[in-house]
Amino acid sequence: MPDAHRIEAAISEALARARGGATAPGQLSAALSYACLPGGARIRPTILSAVAEACGEDRPPLTDAAAAALEFIHCASLVHDDLPCFDDAATRRGKPSVHCAFSQPVAVLTGDSLIVIAFETLARAAPQDPTRAVALIEILARQTGMPGGICAGQGWESEERIDLSAYHRAKTGALFVAATQMGAVAAGQDPEPWTELGARIGEAFQVADDLRDACESEAETGKPIGQDAAHGRPNAVARLGREGAIARLNDILSGAISSIPSCPGEGALAHMVRMQAARLVPTQAGTAARV
Amino acid sequence: MPDAHRIEAAISEALARARGGATAPGQLSAALSYACLPGGARIRPTILSAVAEACGEDRPPLTDAAAAALEFIHCASLVHDDLPCFDDAATRRGKPSVHCAFSQPVAVLTGDSLIVIAFETLARAAPQDPTRAVALIEILARQTGMPGGICAGQGWESEERIDLSAYHRAKTGALFVAATQMGAVAAGQDPEPWTELGARIGEAFQVADDLRDACESEAETGKPIGQDAAHGRPNAVARLGREGAIARLNDILSGAISSIPSCPGEGALAHMVRMQAARLVPTQAGTAARV
Repeated sequence: MPDAHRIEAAISEALARARGGATAPGQLSAALSYACLPGGARIRPTILSAVAEACGEDRPPLTDAAAAALEFIHCASLVHDDLPCFDDAATRRGKPSVHCAFSQPVAVLTGDSLIVIAFETLARAAPQDPTRAVALIEILARQTGMPGGICAGQGWESEERIDLSAYHRAKTGALFVAATQMGAVAAGQDPEPWTELGARIGEAFQVADDLRDACESEAETGKPIGQDAAHGRPNAVARLGREGAIARLNDILSGAISSIPSCPGEGALAHMVRMQAARLVPTQAGTAARV
Repeated sequence: MPDAHRIEAAISEALARARGGATAPGQLSAALSYACLPGGARIRPTILSAVAEACGEDRPPLTDAAAAALEFIHCASLVHDDLPCFDDAATRRGKPSVHCAFSQPVAVLTGDSLIVIAFETLARAAPQDPTRAVALIEILARQTGMPGGICAGQGWESEERIDLSAYHRAKTGALFVAATQMGAVAAGQDPEPWTELGARIGEAFQVADDLRDACESEAETGKPIGQDAAHGRPNAVARLGREGAIARLNDILSGAISSIPSCPGEGALAHMVRMQAARLVPTQAGTAARV
């Protein structure tokens, strides 16, 4: 199981450097930390680190930089998604969203800066291994930008006709594929065999998020619920019903575990995926989860 | 003098890859090109390429990737700066700004995607030389993000008390420092001796922009004028008067040319800086420019 302290230390160190001192603008500096600390479940960097460990991690500082970079991209996406022109969400992780706590300009710049910090963190870790660092940067960019990353996923919400498969793959799946691929690359392994695990975890996460949005209260999720219905977005619970969505979630997770490539830490990784899965399942639906 | 076609080809090639095909969201895909084509003066990538040439360029594809990456960051900053929560500018480069031509969500995502494309373009050019590519990524990140890049510069506008020197250095200077430093690194040279040239060109550009904002018409600049006065921002013309600002511009440009490090193409580079300077000076004030 990855060491959560290592991930938090890498995030804090990069944030401290980015926040600068007295010659940096104070609000933007404060907002960078506000957007990332305290974190959520850190599920993407945890998966990344677990895959690196399972692959026989040999460059821990590179793994940590990759984990932090991935989390920065995730936090950036949350800050921008909460903006009034997207979800117009007043809360996130149980506190006011960045544009509410600071302002819209600061929120836009916080997201922009966090994207940059992600790539900077990887570039700064490059002396460990420039070739791996560049591969990590390329994967992270592909899964963040266009045409198939989370920006593309969010972009689909501005289209009249949504390609649902491309939408989910990009909006939720991309950063989980980044997690498994980057974990492999940080440990010097080929990323391709790890794509399916990331994609399946992403699908599971999407169904779990749909369940939470449809079933839980705002107090439980720390953010506004019922957003899919309010914005007319596709939701697995609307399509399959609650029981059907839970059955689908369990199927996907079983598939995820079977897709784990043969590697030194295969058993421990399967255990970690099961543990993360247990956290995914909404409280009210928890008793029905098997994986 | 750098080949403008090489710069445009690198920009177009990266955009075509990022726009994807039918499985990409159409509006965001179209907005990426809309934000970058046709371009403005491409002054930053031109300076970058000129410095690489002066340094005895030996990896042209790496220079071209760096030039395109720098222009993508610049275009991203324009798209986000034009948003209603910042300048609320309806026009840019003589046509509707991205949020007016498309929508605010698409404009936010266009800026985000262009930042990502910038780093991806450099990572994809890495097989040429991973060590130089990583150095280029680190410089571009430092001059884009926090605490001293263009995000920081824009962030100062949300502060009650502005550190004017840090503000100008970050808001306008940072991408010119990136231009000269990245040009040197693309050609395998030490970036540090090239910092002053970039900083001085940045200062000159700021004064020229202040002159344009204060003296020219919207038809001439292709964007709203009088924005500094409207937003209560510092402006060299307000501080020094028009003649004083022109004298200051000429002083800075002379200093810029003297700061050029000794290198194979020193003379040609000085000529290029003079030519770019002539383009900087506003039409109405043009007769007073000496450099």
